[in-house]
Amino acid sequence: MQNKNQVLIYGKHAVSAALNNPRRKIGKLYCLKENLDEWQEKIADNKIAVVDKKELEKMLPREAVHQGVVAVAEMLPNISLEDLCDKAREQNSCHILMLDQVTDPQNIGAIIRSCAAFGSLALVVQDKNSPQESGAMLKAAAGTFELVPVCRVTNLSRAVEKLKKEGFWVVGMDGYAKSDVSALPKDSKLAVIMGSEGTGMRRLVEESCDITVRLPINPQVESLNVSTAAAIVLYELNRK
Amino acid sequence: MQNKNQVLIYGKHAVSAALNNPRRKIGKLYCLKENLDEWQEKIADNKIAVVDKKELEKMLPREAVHQGVVAVAEMLPNISLEDLCDKAREQNSCHILMLDQVTDPQNIGAIIRSCAAFGSLALVVQDKNSPQESGAMLKAAAGTFELVPVCRVTNLSRAVEKLKKEGFWVVGMDGYAKSDVSALPKDSKLAVIMGSEGTGMRRLVEESCDITVRLPINPQVESLNVSTAAAIVLYELNRK
Repeated sequence: MQNKNQVLIYGKHAVSAALNNPRRKIGKLYCLKENLDEWQEKIADNKIAVVDKKELEKMLPREAVHQGVVAVAEMLPNISLEDLCDKAREQNSCHILMLDQVTDPQNIGAIIRSCAAFGSLALVVQDKNSPQESGAMLKAAAGTFELVPVCRVTNLSRAVEKLKKEGFWVVGMDGYAKSDVSALPKDSKLAVIMGSEGTGMRRLVEESCDITVRLPINPQVESLNVSTAAAIVLYELNRK
Repeated sequence: MQNKNQVLIYGKHAVSAALNNPRRKIGKLYCLKENLDEWQEKIADNKIAVVDKKELEKMLPREAVHQGVVAVAEMLPNISLEDLCDKAREQNSCHILMLDQVTDPQNIGAIIRSCAAFGSLALVVQDKNSPQESGAMLKAAAGTFELVPVCRVTNLSRAVEKLKKEGFWVVGMDGYAKSDVSALPKDSKLAVIMGSEGTGMRRLVEESCDITVRLPINPQVESLNVSTAAAIVLYELNRK
């Protein structure tokens, strides 16, 4: 039903946002009869098909919360690191979030939602270790995937070096760091790297950071979920 | 296999934390043969049983990430509102998180993880609308469920009135509020109420608040996930 450049988008928020995004090419929208009115006004008649619940669920992973709608769409184009640097040059201060070895699509979707909420310039991931855009990711992003450019790089450490040359200050999140996240400067260009929950950043990536900082949490608690930690850092960077 | 006061705890973090909690009564621990060594040193021999993967999975909801271990345990006793008020009287400043109509066990588990990380005195929920302690909740809490007292009240608005009499300032989270969360006083007793993601707080609950505040997010983004929003508020309250 979908080819390898396509994604099945499900859930009302995710599908609505995709339809509102002029950069998103929608192939076909499948919905339940009872939801037809709602979707008919948003997409051309020849692109919409009514299906029953069983057919809809056969298209999706088990237990996907589809809310009666699935769209087959082209994946969004990614932003290149060069274009991202061009965008950053237009700004006096901005921030980028970088993920090292974060692989869970739901966590990535939740992180993108926070990137959108707190105005990140882009999300940067290492192509090889990071899952492609997927329905589960878009569902967790609750419609915000359309707002945040994703940059897939071949090598994260090399991307860090490039960003440093562009004037970015590179910050690694690390539970054992000495500095607190609230010490970060607000009026600069920051690239914040989050590692995976289990193992943190890889050594080479960590060594490329200008500074590592921690969130001030109760020492009885080992860590926060990576998407929760990302949200707090991005909130802190936006804090006046 | 379990009675109605028991809970199936699964996943390494959640089970380890339960075993380390002297208040948690464990009935039996089931693990895979390859994990036996790891668990044998933590629990009496007559309480441990080796099972195969199929048996383990039959005990749990589909797609539960069990990491080879399940414990049948008694649910933890809740804290009464009276005992919670007694605890609060011993402190000059503290905070409590209250949930109105938040029903997803994973969100509640994630919220408890943040309550533990940022030292909330307790989590207060309305008994009727809030799911009981469950394996999915404990898994999302990643071992921190053992650290945060949960208070189940019959009526949330009445609990708010009681907390006000005890000197708490009651704060409602609302995306349309005029004040920003960073304006909240840090050296006082605060009870923060989060509503459900879809509909927010119920009107009566909202009217009982001393103030409502919002998180400063991009207006293009409708809201954050309730557990993400909770984490940011709790971080802000702990911020020096």
